Amino acid sequence: MSGSPALIHVNVQNGYDICIERGVLPRSGKHIRFISGAEKAMIISDSHVAPLYLNTVAASLERYGFAVTRHIFPAGESHKTTGSVVSMVEALAKAGLSRGDIVVALGGGVTGDLAGFAAGIYLRGIDFVQIPTTLLSQIDSSVGGKVGCDLPQGKNLAGCFYQPRLVLIDPEALRTLPPRFFADGVGEGLKYGCISDPSLFGRWEKNEGLDEKIARCVEIKQKLVEQDEKESGPRRLLNFGHTLGHAIEKYYHFEGFSHGEAVAIGMAMITAASEKAGLTEPGTAARLREALLENGLPVSCEAPVEELCALCAGDKKRIGKELHLALISEIGKGFLHTIPFAAFYGFIKEGIG
Amino acid sequence: MSGSPALIHVNVQNGYDICIERGVLPRSGKHIRFISGAEKAMIISDSHVAPLYLNTVAASLERYGFAVTRHIFPAGESHKTTGSVVSMVEALAKAGLSRGDIVVALGGGVTGDLAGFAAGIYLRGIDFVQIPTTLLSQIDSSVGGKVGCDLPQGKNLAGCFYQPRLVLIDPEALRTLPPRFFADGVGEGLKYGCISDPSLFGRWEKNEGLDEKIARCVEIKQKLVEQDEKESGPRRLLNFGHTLGHAIEKYYHFEGFSHGEAVAIGMAMITAASEKAGLTEPGTAARLREALLENGLPVSCEAPVEELCALCAGDKKRIGKELHLALISEIGKGFLHTIPFAAFYGFIKEGIG
Repeated sequence: MSGSPALIHVNVQNGYDICIERGVLPRSGKHIRFISGAEKAMIISDSHVAPLYLNTVAASLERYGFAVTRHIFPAGESHKTTGSVVSMVEALAKAGLSRGDIVVALGGGVTGDLAGFAAGIYLRGIDFVQIPTTLLSQIDSSVGGKVGCDLPQGKNLAGCFYQPRLVLIDPEALRTLPPRFFADGVGEGLKYGCISDPSLFGRWEKNEGLDEKIARCVEIKQKLVEQDEKESGPRRLLNFGHTLGHAIEKYYHFEGFSHGEAVAIGMAMITAASEKAGLTEPGTAARLREALLENGLPVSCEAPVEELCALCAGDKKRIGKELHLALISEIGKGFLHTIPFAAFYGFIKEGIG
Repeated sequence: MSGSPALIHVNVQNGYDICIERGVLPRSGKHIRFISGAEKAMIISDSHVAPLYLNTVAASLERYGFAVTRHIFPAGESHKTTGSVVSMVEALAKAGLSRGDIVVALGGGVTGDLAGFAAGIYLRGIDFVQIPTTLLSQIDSSVGGKVGCDLPQGKNLAGCFYQPRLVLIDPEALRTLPPRFFADGVGEGLKYGCISDPSLFGRWEKNEGLDEKIARCVEIKQKLVEQDEKESGPRRLLNFGHTLGHAIEKYYHFEGFSHGEAVAIGMAMITAASEKAGLTEPGTAARLREALLENGLPVSCEAPVEELCALCAGDKKRIGKELHLALISEIGKGFLHTIPFAAFYGFIKEGIG
């Protein structure tokens, strides 16, 4: 489980480094000072993560001359609101951060998305650093520059594209992660295997080499992001399992299933459907299902398919009357498939029936 | 006052056209259909402008096949809040606009800034068109891609850089503009003359050729924006009069003076100071003062200089301990000047004393 440090450069406009290194958390100040001349740093964290790691990161930042202020918000998906973002932006203004200063997002995906959005709109954008502390955020949400929040009408409906200046990933931090949250990340990890790397999929199946798997997932995502910063083409492969996944989260009011669990169900459902439709090699859905179950992830839910499909109508992947789906032809090969929105229910229903 | 139509192309990333044409408002649907395949359009306007022009624009959009929804918010600077932006974003979600759809901002600077910000963060950015209906917004805020809102801590502290797809300027719409709002725009118009065009300054002094002056102001601004989209260099010249102007607005809680009036006072004060400091040709401050007064604009206020300077501490133009000032060496020549924040009060005080 140890692994050697990895440094991945994301080559978008205003490119940045992703550093994967055990024990990087107490050394974060040094890394951040290397990319920032800021006087002030605000660490944004939630009520779960702050008690575990905030003092460690603050001490390291102070050692490197940053004047540190802290903003702690209540943990949980239900706080991924415009209200939380507004509180953060107002906290930045109250603390008097200026354009040269920096925001440090310390926590899971919700923290990174909210703090990144706040940093992206405060003074029309100040620097921010991501320190993801969950498996899901390490392999997924800290890469790619998508930041934002939910609206009452749906998930991630507000936000912007805003790149961090640096991402620090400490696999050591996962020791404190509850098993269900770990599984949440494995769901997304299996997704990377599904859409582009059969051997990565195999390593998740066999539970081998965590640090290397994190690095490999990050690498796959950063390559797709580099090709397609604004998500008009290949990056959409990353949405595998997400169209239904988001609908499932919404159906259960973001309380029944975690993001990774909902995506797991979404991947299982859409692959059953695409296999039935002859778009996916026979046996793929069963192997995916098995891997998900092995890792403590669900593969189905009670929500009526009609309602899930209806909820997909508000999905961002919908453009006008069409739905752009990410599917796999076999384990390791993702592809994009466009269907009329009206045909979507039939497509999914076939897979289940 | 008639003038011929002008088309100015702004050559930034995702460039766009600014069309200055009398009577373009009732023809707006045609122009917008030319750049958009949207099914749905949401017109965002305030309670002053909506009764005057919303039906005209809506009818034109409907004629060109857009399904139009309307969002009207209360007029006035005091509504330039995060709350207004959140309402707009939620209205877009409720109306079910998807990525290919479009927002039309119809009104003054506040409307353009708020609606542009909402469009910029809804689904991480959908298209928007600016239809500025005040002189100030026609020559200033509809060009340059700066959108946003105020925070309780200060003006324009939240926002992003987001370019419109098209700007439609109808000088005809200025007929309904109350004189004080017209003067508001002249303040900014004189600014363009001050920083880069002595003959434009002369035409404002003599009250000649409105349409041409609008076009010339837009041209000056778009050239500065093209050189410097993210405002790190020459674009800062546009801040002439604004550092103190924002402080004046803040001192009076955005109620005592309009933006253009506050900027007029700011230009008069800073030029008196820079002339005293030997940075500006003698006589410039007096000529500027005269032109402002001639156009119904104020050149001084009761606010104590100490307090105004203290309010500048929160200005976005402040970077760490320094303040970046836009000054003029003579009418038509702007330049950037950096002074330590600690020296700012003495600099201004000299000019007044």
